[in-house]
Amino acid sequence: MIDLPTLRLKPKMDPRRLRHGYPWVYDNELVLDRRSKAIAPGSLAVLADADHTPIALVAANPGSRIAGRVLDVAGLTELTEDWFAARLTRALDLRERLYPDPFYRLVHAEADGFPGVVIDRFGDTCVVQPNAAWAEVHLDLLVAALRRVTGATNVLKSAGGRARGLEGLDDVDLVLAGSAPDAPVPVPMNGAVYMADLTGGQKTGLFFDQRPNHAFTAALAGGRRVLDVFSHVGGFALAALAAGAESALAVDGSQPALDLASEGATRSGVADRFSTRKGDAFDVLTTLGAEGETFGAVICDPPAFAPSKPALDAGLRAYERIARLAAPLVEPGGTLTLCSCSHAADLEKFRTACIRGIGRGLYQTGRSAQLIHTGFAGPDHPVHPQLAETGYLKALVFRL
Amino acid sequence: MIDLPTLRLKPKMDPRRLRHGYPWVYDNELVLDRRSKAIAPGSLAVLADADHTPIALVAANPGSRIAGRVLDVAGLTELTEDWFAARLTRALDLRERLYPDPFYRLVHAEADGFPGVVIDRFGDTCVVQPNAAWAEVHLDLLVAALRRVTGATNVLKSAGGRARGLEGLDDVDLVLAGSAPDAPVPVPMNGAVYMADLTGGQKTGLFFDQRPNHAFTAALAGGRRVLDVFSHVGGFALAALAAGAESALAVDGSQPALDLASEGATRSGVADRFSTRKGDAFDVLTTLGAEGETFGAVICDPPAFAPSKPALDAGLRAYERIARLAAPLVEPGGTLTLCSCSHAADLEKFRTACIRGIGRGLYQTGRSAQLIHTGFAGPDHPVHPQLAETGYLKALVFRL
Repeated sequence: MIDLPTLRLKPKMDPRRLRHGYPWVYDNELVLDRRSKAIAPGSLAVLADADHTPIALVAANPGSRIAGRVLDVAGLTELTEDWFAARLTRALDLRERLYPDPFYRLVHAEADGFPGVVIDRFGDTCVVQPNAAWAEVHLDLLVAALRRVTGATNVLKSAGGRARGLEGLDDVDLVLAGSAPDAPVPVPMNGAVYMADLTGGQKTGLFFDQRPNHAFTAALAGGRRVLDVFSHVGGFALAALAAGAESALAVDGSQPALDLASEGATRSGVADRFSTRKGDAFDVLTTLGAEGETFGAVICDPPAFAPSKPALDAGLRAYERIARLAAPLVEPGGTLTLCSCSHAADLEKFRTACIRGIGRGLYQTGRSAQLIHTGFAGPDHPVHPQLAETGYLKALVFRL
Repeated sequence: MIDLPTLRLKPKMDPRRLRHGYPWVYDNELVLDRRSKAIAPGSLAVLADADHTPIALVAANPGSRIAGRVLDVAGLTELTEDWFAARLTRALDLRERLYPDPFYRLVHAEADGFPGVVIDRFGDTCVVQPNAAWAEVHLDLLVAALRRVTGATNVLKSAGGRARGLEGLDDVDLVLAGSAPDAPVPVPMNGAVYMADLTGGQKTGLFFDQRPNHAFTAALAGGRRVLDVFSHVGGFALAALAAGAESALAVDGSQPALDLASEGATRSGVADRFSTRKGDAFDVLTTLGAEGETFGAVICDPPAFAPSKPALDAGLRAYERIARLAAPLVEPGGTLTLCSCSHAADLEKFRTACIRGIGRGLYQTGRSAQLIHTGFAGPDHPVHPQLAETGYLKALVFRL
C-alpha cells in the first residue's frame, strides 16, 4: 500500500461539488501547509475534506491555480498502464462509432477522464498534448497504453499549449514513439481530403472540431461560389467543393496554410475549382465588397478574438466588424457562416455581435436574415458536465 | 393609392429597434386612441414614429398584446398573391436545398417573413396554421400562392394553436383547397417512414423539428437496444432502427400515437425489431429501473414541462426527475438523449437540470457523463435574428 500525500479542503469549503463530479480543486480552497506545498508537481495525492474523509484521487500541483485535478475515486493509489488503457478504450469506442476513418480527437481532456490532456489521432500517428503536470509525469504509461489500444505506431508530443507554462512545464516537442511523419498527412473528412502538417517548420496542424459545421455549410453550398475567410488548410472550402460547390476561394494570412489547402484540393480532386488569396482578412473582405463581388456561401472562422475576459469587448467588436463586412458579399438566399473559438464570448454575446454586424452590413438593402443553424464542436470534443459553460466553439449559419 | 390607417409610437419610444428589424410592436408602445383602437384585427396599417415618419407596413391587431407585426417596408399598401408567392418561393428554396423529399416545415413564422404563420408540408398536402389575424384576413391569397408555388393540391387549416385565442380567432379546422387525406400520410425522414395523421380524430400530426437530433442519436445506436420515451409516432425509435439498432421500445401515453409508430415501423421494414408500451413515462421508467433493464440508447422527449415562466421551477424539477430515472437505464458507454421544447427553460437552465438529474441517477455508481451533442430545431425552423432568444427546442445527448 503506497502512502499518498493528502490535500485537505479548508474547513469552510463544502465538499459536495467535488463529490458530485466537479473535476478541479483550486489552490485557495485547500489548506496548503509546508508539507503540501512540497508535493512534487504531477504527483498523486488524496483529496480529503476538512474532517480528513477522502473524496478522490487527485493529481496535485500546489504551485498551480488548479492545485488538484480529480483522476479517480479515493482508494486508488497508483496509475498503471491498464488504468490508461481502460480510459483510452472508452474514448476510442465513441470515436469508432462516430467516424469511419481513424482521424479525430481521441481524448478531449476532463470530459474523457484525462484532465488537461488532449490527443489527436491522424491514422497511425497520435499527437499528445500533455498540458498538465500529472500527464507529463506519467507520459511513459500513457504512450504505452495509447500504442496498445489504438495500434498507432507514431506518438508525437506537442508542447506548445499555453497551459503548460501555468503548470511549470517546458515547451519542447518530442517524438515519443516511432517516428515523425516526413510529409503532411492526408486526412479524410466530409468527403474531402485535408493535409495536416504535424511536424514541419510551420506545423499548421489540423482542427477536427469544426467537422459538423463544415458538413452543414457544405450541404447548402451545392452549385454555389464559396468564400472561405480565415481558411487555414481549407476546412470549409474543401468540404463545400466535395459537396458540389461551383468554386471556392480560400483567404488566409498564412501562405503555408494556403499551400496545404491547395494540396488538399488536389488530393480531393477539386483543384480546378479552388483558388487562394493570401492577405489580411479584413482587407480582403473590404476589397471584395468594394469590387461588388458576391458569393452563395461566405464563411468567416477567425482565430479567437476574445481569448480572455479583458479582451471581450474588443473581441466582440471584431466579430461585429467581420459580420458587417461579410454580409454584403452574400448573394440573396445565400448563407453566411460565422464562427468563434473564444472562451470569453459566450453564445449569446457572440450571436448578438453577429446579428448587429449583419444588420449594419445589410442596412437599407431591405434584406433580412434568418438564423438556420447553431453548432458547436463535434462529438469527438465532448464536454465535461460540470464544465459545460466552457464550450468554446460556436458556429452560426445565417441565410441572408 | 390606398390610404392605410396609422399606428403611432409613443413619444418616448425609440424607433431604432424597429428600424433594425425587430418584428413586433406592443400595445403599450403605441398611442392607441379611439381611431386606432377601431382598426379591424388583421388590417394593414402604417407604423410611424412619434414624429409621424413611417417605419414599416404592419399588420394591426390593437386588441392583442402584439398590436403590430411588421410585414414589409413602409410604402407598400396592399398584399397581393405575388407578395405571398415571392416569400413562399424564398422559403421553398431553402427547404429544397435541405431535403430530398417535400416533407418539412415550409414556413416558420417571423423568420420566414410570415408573422404568426406556420406551414408544414407533407408532399401534396400543406397544413397552414394562421395564428395571427392578418393571415386569417388574407387566407385566400396565401392559399392561392401556396398552391402556385409548391404545386400542392391539398391545403388544410389547423386552428388549434393557442395563439389564435389571443388574436381573437376561432378554433375551427377547415379544408381550404383540395381534400383532406383519408388516411395517415407516410413521411420519409432519416431513412425511416413515419405516419402522420393530419385529419383523423386524434390528429397526432408530426413534428419535423427534431430531424437532426433524431439523426445524431440514431447514428450512435447501431447494434444497440433503444428506449424511446414520450415516443409520439416513433421519432427517435424508427430513425434508430433504420440506422441499424438491434431493437426499439417506444413508450407513450397515447395509443393512437403508438399505433401510428407501429404502422411506421412496418412501412420502414423494421417491425420485427419494434415494440410499444402504453403508459405514463415516469411509471414506465421507474418500472424498467426496478427490473434492472438497460439500453444502449435512451431518449426522453417530453411535452413542454415549463411552457411558461410561472411553470419554470416545477418544469425544471420534472426534467431533473426524468434524467434521474433515465440515467440508470443506460448501459455503460450508451447514450442518453434529453429534450425540452419549453420556451421558459433556456439552454443553460435545462442543461443544469439534466446534469443534476444524471448525477443523482448515477450517484455512487462511479460512472461519469460526457455531453457529446447540443442540438436545436432543424434548419427548416429558422430563427428570426431579433427573436433569437426564443429558440424553444433543445436536445442534449450525453454518453454515460
